[in-house]
Amino acid sequence: MRRDVFTADHESFREFVRDLVAKEVVPHYADWEDAGVLPRDLFTRLGSLGVLGMAIPEEYGGAGLCDYRYNVVLQEEAARACVTLGTVRTQLDVILPYFLAYADEAQRERWFPGLANGGLLTAIAMTEPGTGSDLAGIRTTAVRDGDDYVLNGAKTFITGGLLADLVVVVARTSTDPGDRRAGLTLLVVEDGMPGFTRGRVLPKMGIKVQDTVELSFADVRVPVANRLGEEGAAFGYLGHNLPQERLTVAVGSVAQARAALAATIAYVRERTAFGTPVASFQNTKFELASVDTEVEAAQVMLDHAVLELVAGRLSAADAARVKLFCTEVQARAVDRCLQLFGGYGYITEYPIARLYADARITRIYAGTSEVMKVIIAKSLGL
Amino acid sequence: MRRDVFTADHESFREFVRDLVAKEVVPHYADWEDAGVLPRDLFTRLGSLGVLGMAIPEEYGGAGLCDYRYNVVLQEEAARACVTLGTVRTQLDVILPYFLAYADEAQRERWFPGLANGGLLTAIAMTEPGTGSDLAGIRTTAVRDGDDYVLNGAKTFITGGLLADLVVVVARTSTDPGDRRAGLTLLVVEDGMPGFTRGRVLPKMGIKVQDTVELSFADVRVPVANRLGEEGAAFGYLGHNLPQERLTVAVGSVAQARAALAATIAYVRERTAFGTPVASFQNTKFELASVDTEVEAAQVMLDHAVLELVAGRLSAADAARVKLFCTEVQARAVDRCLQLFGGYGYITEYPIARLYADARITRIYAGTSEVMKVIIAKSLGL
Amino acid sequence: MRRDVFTADHESFREFVRDLVAKEVVPHYADWEDAGVLPRDLFTRLGSLGVLGMAIPEEYGGAGLCDYRYNVVLQEEAARACVTLGTVRTQLDVILPYFLAYADEAQRERWFPGLANGGLLTAIAMTEPGTGSDLAGIRTTAVRDGDDYVLNGAKTFITGGLLADLVVVVARTSTDPGDRRAGLTLLVVEDGMPGFTRGRVLPKMGIKVQDTVELSFADVRVPVANRLGEEGAAFGYLGHNLPQERLTVAVGSVAQARAALAATIAYVRERTAFGTPVASFQNTKFELASVDTEVEAAQVMLDHAVLELVAGRLSAADAARVKLFCTEVQARAVDRCLQLFGGYGYITEYPIARLYADARITRIYAGTSEVMKVIIAKSLGL
Amino acid sequence: MRRDVFTADHESFREFVRDLVAKEVVPHYADWEDAGVLPRDLFTRLGSLGVLGMAIPEEYGGAGLCDYRYNVVLQEEAARACVTLGTVRTQLDVILPYFLAYADEAQRERWFPGLANGGLLTAIAMTEPGTGSDLAGIRTTAVRDGDDYVLNGAKTFITGGLLADLVVVVARTSTDPGDRRAGLTLLVVEDGMPGFTRGRVLPKMGIKVQDTVELSFADVRVPVANRLGEEGAAFGYLGHNLPQERLTVAVGSVAQARAALAATIAYVRERTAFGTPVASFQNTKFELASVDTEVEAAQVMLDHAVLELVAGRLSAADAARVKLFCTEVQARAVDRCLQLFGGYGYITEYPIARLYADARITRIYAGTSEVMKVIIAKSLGL
Repeated sequence: MRRDVFTADHESFREFVRDLVAKEVVPHYADWEDAGVLPRDLFTRLGSLGVLGMAIPEEYGGAGLCDYRYNVVLQEEAARACVTLGTVRTQLDVILPYFLAYADEAQRERWFPGLANGGLLTAIAMTEPGTGSDLAGIRTTAVRDGDDYVLNGAKTFITGGLLADLVVVVARTSTDPGDRRAGLTLLVVEDGMPGFTRGRVLPKMGIKVQDTVELSFADVRVPVANRLGEEGAAFGYLGHNLPQERLTVAVGSVAQARAALAATIAYVRERTAFGTPVASFQNTKFELASVDTEVEAAQVMLDHAVLELVAGRLSAADAARVKLFCTEVQARAVDRCLQLFGGYGYITEYPIARLYADARITRIYAGTSEVMKVIIAKSLGL
Repeated sequence: MRRDVFTADHESFREFVRDLVAKEVVPHYADWEDAGVLPRDLFTRLGSLGVLGMAIPEEYGGAGLCDYRYNVVLQEEAARACVTLGTVRTQLDVILPYFLAYADEAQRERWFPGLANGGLLTAIAMTEPGTGSDLAGIRTTAVRDGDDYVLNGAKTFITGGLLADLVVVVARTSTDPGDRRAGLTLLVVEDGMPGFTRGRVLPKMGIKVQDTVELSFADVRVPVANRLGEEGAAFGYLGHNLPQERLTVAVGSVAQARAALAATIAYVRERTAFGTPVASFQNTKFELASVDTEVEAAQVMLDHAVLELVAGRLSAADAARVKLFCTEVQARAVDRCLQLFGGYGYITEYPIARLYADARITRIYAGTSEVMKVIIAKSLGL
Repeated sequence: MRRDVFTADHESFREFVRDLVAKEVVPHYADWEDAGVLPRDLFTRLGSLGVLGMAIPEEYGGAGLCDYRYNVVLQEEAARACVTLGTVRTQLDVILPYFLAYADEAQRERWFPGLANGGLLTAIAMTEPGTGSDLAGIRTTAVRDGDDYVLNGAKTFITGGLLADLVVVVARTSTDPGDRRAGLTLLVVEDGMPGFTRGRVLPKMGIKVQDTVELSFADVRVPVANRLGEEGAAFGYLGHNLPQERLTVAVGSVAQARAALAATIAYVRERTAFGTPVASFQNTKFELASVDTEVEAAQVMLDHAVLELVAGRLSAADAARVKLFCTEVQARAVDRCLQLFGGYGYITEYPIARLYADARITRIYAGTSEVMKVIIAKSLGL
Repeated sequence: MRRDVFTADHESFREFVRDLVAKEVVPHYADWEDAGVLPRDLFTRLGSLGVLGMAIPEEYGGAGLCDYRYNVVLQEEAARACVTLGTVRTQLDVILPYFLAYADEAQRERWFPGLANGGLLTAIAMTEPGTGSDLAGIRTTAVRDGDDYVLNGAKTFITGGLLADLVVVVARTSTDPGDRRAGLTLLVVEDGMPGFTRGRVLPKMGIKVQDTVELSFADVRVPVANRLGEEGAAFGYLGHNLPQERLTVAVGSVAQARAALAATIAYVRERTAFGTPVASFQNTKFELASVDTEVEAAQVMLDHAVLELVAGRLSAADAARVKLFCTEVQARAVDRCLQLFGGYGYITEYPIARLYADARITRIYAGTSEVMKVIIAKSLGL
C-alpha cells in the first residue's frame, strides 16, 4: 500500500544509503559475521559520511536533522540488502537519544563530536544476570563518594559492549524499599576506567554482526561529571526512550520481513519443482499473498506509529502494540518464506536462513512479547 | 491508536447516528432478527432523517455529501451498539454507487428521490447457483427484443431480495467464447414485473436481520430504459465498485471486533471465577492485549485504505488485502473473546454470541478469502 | 489410521446404531431442533431397544455391558449422520455413572428400571450463576432436617433440565472455611417436589436439540433416601467422573470433526468454481490434508485414552489433555471445512453450518480449555 | 500419557544408550558441532558396542534384532540429552534398510561386517540440484558398459557424504518419456572410485554435527556387482523405504520437542522475573500446558505408527500424516519454549537455541510438508 511517511529529503537520503550499503557493507558482511562484531572502521567511515551525526546539532559536527525517519530509512535500506547494521543501529536509535536529551553542555562538548565522527562507540547497559526485562529489579549500585560514584555490579546481554568507548550504565544510587523504580541513575563509564572489565562475548543464534557481551564493574570510580541527567531520574528517562527503542525493533522487523518476501518471490519464480515453477503452485501463491498481506498491515501500522513518534505523540502502550504485532508478523513471515525455499532455506548462504535466525530475537529484546502484553493490558484497564 | 480519518462534520454525524441507533434500532433489533428482515419502516424513517440520501445530489432530495466516511461512521456506530444495519448497509455501500455512477438523467429522476427518502429498496443480483465468486461464469441471459431485454435465469444469496423494489441484475447480453468477462450488462428489474419471482429465504447461521433470498427470472421483459450504464460494460463496473464493497465488509469486521473486545473487557471486569475477577487472570490480560493489538493493526490498515478510497486511489489488490486481513482479525477476535465469557458466550442473549455467528460470513461474502489471495498474488506477479 | 479400539461386538452394535439413527433420528432432527428439546418418546424408544440400559445390570432390565466403548459408538454413529443425541448422551455418559457407582440397593430398585427403559429422564445440576467451572464455589445449600435435607439455591446451564424426572443436585451440606471442596453432597431431586421449579430455557447458538435450563430450589425437602453416596463426598465423586465426562466431549468433537471433513470432501468433489471442481484446487487439497492430519492425530490420541479409561487408568490430567486437544482440533476443522463451502456453509440447511455452531461449546463445557490447562500445568509440577 | 510401545528388552537397551550418550557423546558434542561432522571414531566405537549392528544378521557380525523400536530408543535417548546422532541415525534408519532388503549374498559378505562394526560409513544420494523432493525428476545417468555402469551427474544435500565409504546413488539407467518413475537404479559408489568427487560442505543453520555435501560423478565406472537390487526398480524401493525414513524424522521431532519442554520446565522453575519464579506466571503455565498437550498428541500418534511400521502395516499416507503433524508440533513447541527463556534462549550455549535451529529442517527434509500434503490429499481421493 502507498506509504506517506517520507519527504523528498528522506528519499534522497535513501538513495544515498542504498548505494552506501551496496558498496561499504554488503561486500564485507560475511567477514563481519565471522568476526562477530562490526569493525571500528565502519563507524569512522559512516561518521565521515555524515550518517552518524544526522541528529547531532551542527555546532558539534552533526547535521542537526533530528528526525527519526532518517533512522528508519537507514534500517530499511540495510534490510533491503538482507544485512543489518547492528551496533550502528543501537547507537543511533537507542543510545544517542539519551545523550541528546540529557547531556549537559560540558558533556556535549566532550562527546558529541566523537559520536558524530565515529570516534566514540557506545553501549547501554540495562539488563543484569537474572533480571531480564525487569528494569525495576536492577541491583548494580553506585555510591556517591566525593566527586565520584563508586560503581559495582554486573550487566549482561550488552549490545556493542565489546568495543564501546562509552557505556551508559543504569545503576541504583539509592534504595527506597517502597518504590523499586526510584533511585536509578545513568552513569557514563569510559573505556579504560579501572575496575571496568568486559566479559565473555555471548554466542548467539543470529544477528551475528553485533556483539553481545557481559560487563562487570568492580569499584569503578565514575566522576559525577559523567552522570547523564539527574540522579535518581533514570527510570523516567528509560520510560521516555523505550517507545523509540521498541519502534526501532519494529522497523527492523518489518523491513526484514519485506526482504524475506522479496527474496522468496524472486526465488519461487526462477526455481522449478516437479517440472513447473514453484511460483505456479496455488499453495505458493496463497502463502505469499497471506504473508504479503500481514506485512502490509504491519507496515501501515508501523508507518502510522513513526509519524506519531515524530510528532511526539506515541504512547508507551501504542509502541508496545506496534512492537508486538510487527515482530509476530516477522516471525510468521520468515518461517513461511523459508519453507518455500525447501532445503536451500536451511543453507546459511541463502539470506533467508540469516533472516530467519536473526528474526528470533525481536520478540525478546527491548522487552519481550509478554512484557508488551502487560503494558497493553494495563492501558485497557486490565 | 490515534485515528486521523474523520473531520468535525463526520464526528457530528457520529453523535447523531449513535443516538439514532440507540433509539430507533436497538429496542427493535430482537424482533427484526426474529422476522429475519429489516422492516420497510426503518428505511422510510432513515430516509426522512436524511441518512439514506447523504450521497445523493441535493436536486433529488439528498444531501450531496458523497463521502464514504459517512458510511463508515454509520457502520461503526451500529457495531458499537452490537447491532448491524443489514440491507441499509448494502444499499448505501454496495448498490447506491452503481446508481450514482451509471444512472442516466431519466433514471436519476425516476429513482433518486425514492432512494433518498426510503421509498425504494434495492438489491443487487450477481451470484448464481453454482457460480459463487466467479462473476465471469454468470449464465443469466438478457436478449434484446425491441425496446426490451428478455431476461432469464436464477440468482441466489441475494441480500435484501425479499423487499427490494429495484433489483440490479447482472445478466449476459452477448457471448464471446474467448472472453467470459465480456457481454455482461446491468438491468434494473422492478418489483411486479411479470416473470420475476422471489424464491426461498435462505436460513442463515447469523446476520439474521438481513434477508438472503433466491430470485428467478422467466422471460421478464425489462425495458432498455432500465439498463444501468452501457450494454456489455458490467464487468468493468463491478470491478470498479468491488474495492468499496470489500472495504465495507472490512469496516464492519473491524467495528464488530472492537465491539466484541469492548463487551469482553466489560464482562471480565465484573465477572468473577474461582473467587477473583476474570480480568485479574494473566491469561485474560494477555488474550485481550493480543486481540486488542490485532484489532488496532486492522483499524490502522483500514483507516489508511478508507482515506485512499476517498482519494480515489484504492487499488483492487489493496482492497483485497484489507478485506482479507480485517476479516481474519475479526474471526480470531470474536473467537477469543467469546471464550472468555465461558458458557454465557454460547447464549444468544449475550451480544458476543451474535457477534460470533455474524462474523463467520465476512471471510466468505463479497469474495472469499481465497479469491482475495488470488487477487493479491497476481499483484505480486505470481 | 487403523483403529484398534473395538471388538466385533462393538462393530455389531455400530451397525445397529447406524440403522437406528438413520430411521429414528435423522427424519425428525429438524423438528427437534425447532422444539429445542429431544422428545420423551425418543427415550422410551431407545429404552425399548436396549440402548439406554447397555450399562445397567441385567437384574434391573439392562444388558449388563458396562463398557464405555458402546457409548463411543453411539456418539460416533450419530455424528456420522451429522446429528447429535443431546441429552441421551449426557444421561448415558455423564449422569448414569453416578447412579451406577453410588446408588444403594433401594435406589437401584427404584430408579434403574426407569433409567433402562427410558421412563426416567435425568439431569445433573452442578453449575450455578456466577461459578462456572469452579465446583468448589458452589453455594446451593442442603440442611439436614430429620429424614430430609432442605435444599435452597439456583443452578444454571443445566442440560436436560426441562424434562428431567430426576435431577442430581450438587449441594453444600456443611461449610469448612478452610476447605472449599469439603461438604458437597449429591441429592436426587424428583420432578414435582414442592419448591423445585424450572426457569428459563436458555437460547443457544448451537446444540439446539438439547435443552439448557435454569433450575431453582426453594426449601425443597429431599428425603435422605434420595442422597446419592455419602454425605460430603461429592467433590471426590465429581473428580472421579470428570475424566469420562471430558472424554465424552472429546469423542463428540472428533466424531463431528470427521463428519465435517467427510461432508466437505464430498462437497468439493461435486462442486465447481471457476469452471473446475473445487477439489482440483491445490488450496482445497492442502487444507483438507491438513485438517485430516489433525483429526487423525486427535482420533489416535482419543482412542488411546478410551482404552485407558476402559482399563481404569485414565488420569484427570490426561483426560484434560485429550479434551483440550480434541476440541481445539474440532474448532479448526469445522472452521476450515466451512470455508470451503463458500456461501453455502453459512446456510443452516447445510450440516456444516450446524457442525460449526455446535462446535463452539466444546471448548467451554465440561470445563473450559483454560481449566484444562490449569489441570495439565499442575500435573507438570507448575 | 502411558506408552505401550516398548518391551523390557527395549527398556534395557534404553538404559544402555542413555549411559552411552552421557559418556561418549555429550562431552564431545560441542567439538563435533564445531567440526561440522561426526568423527569416524564414534562409528567404530558404536560398532564395537553393537549399536550399529542391531539389525544386521548375526552371521555378519550383527545382533539380528531387526526391530525399528531399537532405533527409536536410540534417537529418544540422544534427544533426551539435547544432542542428535546425525549420520548415525541416517545410516541406521534410512540407509541400512536398503542394504538389508536388497543386498545379494556377495554384497552382504562384502559390506555387512563393515556396516556392523563401524568400518563402513554410508550415505544415500537422491536429491539433485534443482529437483528437491521430486524423485521422478532425477537426471543422474548410469549407462551400462560391459560389467560396469558409467555414472554421470551431480547430487546435493547429501547427509554424511563427507566421510562416506559407500554412497548409494539413485541413477537413471533408462528413459521412458511416458513414465518418469521407471528406469531408476541404486548403485553403490565406493570411496576412491575414479571420477567420484565430493564438493562443498554446505553450511547449515542447525544440525551442525551432520555434514551435508555436494557430490559429483564424472564417468565413474561402477561395477554391476555394486548394483543394489534390480535395475530399474529403485523408485519402488524408495517408495517402500520412505515411510520409515519419514517416521524417523517424526521420532526425532517428538523426542526433541520433549527435550525442549523438559528443559523449559526446569528453567522456568529456577528462574525468576519481576521477583517471582517464571513458572508462577499463568502465561507460563498455560503455554507449557498447551505445548505439553500437543507433544503428547504427537507422541501417541507416533507410537501408534511405530507399532504399525513394526507390524509391516504403515501406509505411505499415514507416514506422511505422522511426519507432517509431528514436525509441525515440534516447530510450535520449540518456538514457544524458547520464548520462555527470554534472551537466554538466543544464546547458543543453551540447548533450547540448538533445538530451535535444528528443528527448522524437519518440515523440509525427507519430503517437505507440502509433499506430505500432496500424498495425504491423494489418499483422500482429492
